[in-house]
Amino acid sequence: MERKITLSEKEIPDKWYNITADMPNKPLPPLNPGTMEPIGPEALAPLFPMELIKQEVTTEKYVDIPDEVRNIYSMWRPTPVYRAYNLEKMLDTPAKIYYKYEGVSPTGSHKPNTAVPQAYYSKQEGVKKITTETGAGQWGSALSFACQHFDIECEVFMVKLSFLHKPYRKVMMNTWGATVHPSPSNETEIGRKILAENPDTTGSLGIAISEAIERAASDEHTKYALGSVLNHVKLHQTIIGQEAILQMEKAGDMPDIVIAPFGGGSNFAGLAFPFLRLNFDEGKSIRCIASEPSSCPKLTRGVFRYDFGDTAGMTPLLPMYTLGHDFVPAPIHAGGLRYHGAGVIVSQLLKDKLIEARAHDNLEVFDAGVKFAKAEGIIPAPEATHGIATAIAEAERCKREGKSETILINMCGHGNFDMKAYEDYFAGKITKHVLSQEEIDASIARLNTPLIPD
Amino acid sequence: MERKITLSEKEIPDKWYNITADMPNKPLPPLNPGTMEPIGPEALAPLFPMELIKQEVTTEKYVDIPDEVRNIYSMWRPTPVYRAYNLEKMLDTPAKIYYKYEGVSPTGSHKPNTAVPQAYYSKQEGVKKITTETGAGQWGSALSFACQHFDIECEVFMVKLSFLHKPYRKVMMNTWGATVHPSPSNETEIGRKILAENPDTTGSLGIAISEAIERAASDEHTKYALGSVLNHVKLHQTIIGQEAILQMEKAGDMPDIVIAPFGGGSNFAGLAFPFLRLNFDEGKSIRCIASEPSSCPKLTRGVFRYDFGDTAGMTPLLPMYTLGHDFVPAPIHAGGLRYHGAGVIVSQLLKDKLIEARAHDNLEVFDAGVKFAKAEGIIPAPEATHGIATAIAEAERCKREGKSETILINMCGHGNFDMKAYEDYFAGKITKHVLSQEEIDASIARLNTPLIPD
Repeated sequence: MERKITLSEKEIPDKWYNITADMPNKPLPPLNPGTMEPIGPEALAPLFPMELIKQEVTTEKYVDIPDEVRNIYSMWRPTPVYRAYNLEKMLDTPAKIYYKYEGVSPTGSHKPNTAVPQAYYSKQEGVKKITTETGAGQWGSALSFACQHFDIECEVFMVKLSFLHKPYRKVMMNTWGATVHPSPSNETEIGRKILAENPDTTGSLGIAISEAIERAASDEHTKYALGSVLNHVKLHQTIIGQEAILQMEKAGDMPDIVIAPFGGGSNFAGLAFPFLRLNFDEGKSIRCIASEPSSCPKLTRGVFRYDFGDTAGMTPLLPMYTLGHDFVPAPIHAGGLRYHGAGVIVSQLLKDKLIEARAHDNLEVFDAGVKFAKAEGIIPAPEATHGIATAIAEAERCKREGKSETILINMCGHGNFDMKAYEDYFAGKITKHVLSQEEIDASIARLNTPLIPD
Repeated sequence: MERKITLSEKEIPDKWYNITADMPNKPLPPLNPGTMEPIGPEALAPLFPMELIKQEVTTEKYVDIPDEVRNIYSMWRPTPVYRAYNLEKMLDTPAKIYYKYEGVSPTGSHKPNTAVPQAYYSKQEGVKKITTETGAGQWGSALSFACQHFDIECEVFMVKLSFLHKPYRKVMMNTWGATVHPSPSNETEIGRKILAENPDTTGSLGIAISEAIERAASDEHTKYALGSVLNHVKLHQTIIGQEAILQMEKAGDMPDIVIAPFGGGSNFAGLAFPFLRLNFDEGKSIRCIASEPSSCPKLTRGVFRYDFGDTAGMTPLLPMYTLGHDFVPAPIHAGGLRYHGAGVIVSQLLKDKLIEARAHDNLEVFDAGVKFAKAEGIIPAPEATHGIATAIAEAERCKREGKSETILINMCGHGNFDMKAYEDYFAGKITKHVLSQEEIDASIARLNTPLIPD
């Protein structure tokens, strides 16, 4: 059998899949933090184009993908599914391992899947400039790439830790014409305030989001774009799983387990939601596992309650698994997973036990990443190594139990811009980091946001 | 029409194409520098496995590709051919532009096409360790990747300029288990000698080759591998052009012009030789253009005579276009093109006017690279920008002349490990560099190697 299962450009799906249409319990509404009343979509209008706000709350099962978006998708999509024969052999497992490889995009990750439609709808509505945050730099790169295709200005607040670790991500964004600031920056009020309090902070996604929102809110032709967490972002990413279903059918196989790294949820949602649809519609029982870092374990050890999406408390209150909105994760290399909360859809799915979660420490994931690089050739992004670590654990379980299960991983990006992380790993500078219960308790004790009744 | 023209793994060619079988004038034999007599293949036995020596001198038109090599090729091959619709639109040209994209390999360039068979034949013959040189790091990465698949030790001498500019290439090689030294190094006699004479040298491919050869010659279980220049390397790379012919046929088109960057010749040979076969066998008149840097212009401004392949004069004398074997090119970012000579087959083809050559300065190629990145998304390696610059010049000529010619580029690699070069470009640190006639004359005047009679 061939290693790569490919599709033609004609097979790029023409609709995104909206899982909320199928969920037995719908996500609770966001709350206005002033009044504690549910807020409607109109509250998001200063920040987002109307079409994206509509997608945020739509109850339709499918949303059409505009032709112009599919056309830009075709610059790298459909992405291949690989059968990981070499990894199976290395692990001596009876499990069959496949991975959907999103690293073939121009920016090297799955992020352009939502950056392109976000820039497209912004252009349709006359937006001149888009601001955003970025962790590992993958989202910022994706938005820079998308904005330049639609001739929109792009301004990126990049978590300082990643800015320092990954200078070349900045150059990549510059190549597509974007402006990049290390966050916290002196460009915004919230940035200046945080720098005054803690000049040595390495930043966080929460802080960078606050900066980008402040900047967008101050100008009527400027909008804000988010690379994960929100419903419309997850919606756009379902292109991944829909392609993967076609590819698994083509391979004459179907996963028993679907695995993806988890930061805010778009990576996981992208691959898993279309497979969950098969559970809903066709009564399948595909296990979907979200893989998160032990140093930022909101799904496995956080609380399910209302919390802010950003550090400064500028967003509506969202019902989510969270470690607390002022929690600053340890400076692990997987910058894209250093986020305190989980998107509301994924949170509800986990609450309802329709999905699973697994945490891996910093050392375990790099062990997994190097194994994967040796076997399959591709050096994975630090974020992607989390899903690989879960897959290896499941493949080893299959070996112990003598089961030939089929595993599908979202191999969400390559590590070409993350070699500093591997350098640290080979130099023995990466040590096991698991968040202590005291730290979690202290962070959650600081929360004064509403509880969600059982 | 689709942007990407793809092939299935079954369509990976099962033979490499040997152009020497079809050349009207065969390349002159290499000479023993001591006796000035032609040398036979047995002289290469201390350095190369027998099977590669046979391929070096074979007169057969095709050489079978072993199944195990095709199997590893399938980790990334067949590579896609893209129709560069966006670039055509940006240039407003009637020309049709295609590019064969070799950057999808695990190492990000075309180099594994020969690294894999070289490691395979070495393993067959019991080799324990392979040494090599690398310029930009792409060849060293490729050999590291290939050696670990066959459990062979790999030691790389990396031109110091690239070692300093591209630290993450080193980490990539380490990930696949290789050892990497900056060259010139203290590991070899020639390295120590050069460092003593010129401690601040940025190195060159010629010096690094001398170091790797010295190391291999000193141990019977160690062989040497070369990433370009030699006939068997060019042979292996013809997988590129053979795939491209199938893809162009699938697109219902055929190039009028085939363009590839030129360092030692493997990149150019890989794409162009199979198309030259169409000229030989089917009477087509496809123009094949080699693109070199103005700072290292051996094809456009060098002399055709016998010269050494390395700086120290350890190789046989080869009949080649050369700038002189002790010529040290300016420290341009395209490390893979900083080589003083051209492989013997390409040299003979140029001498016989069966191919063309074009030089571009350092600034022109980065202008072309950024244009390409904006249009097509992929940020090209500095080496690859040379082919793009030629293609843009040809597309602009087509526009002036109102001709709708078809252009095919070897887009030999991505620039993910070359962002320092783009950073320098955006910072205005890259200036136009064209080698002066005085420098060329002085370098060639130092040569005391035999002339080739007309």
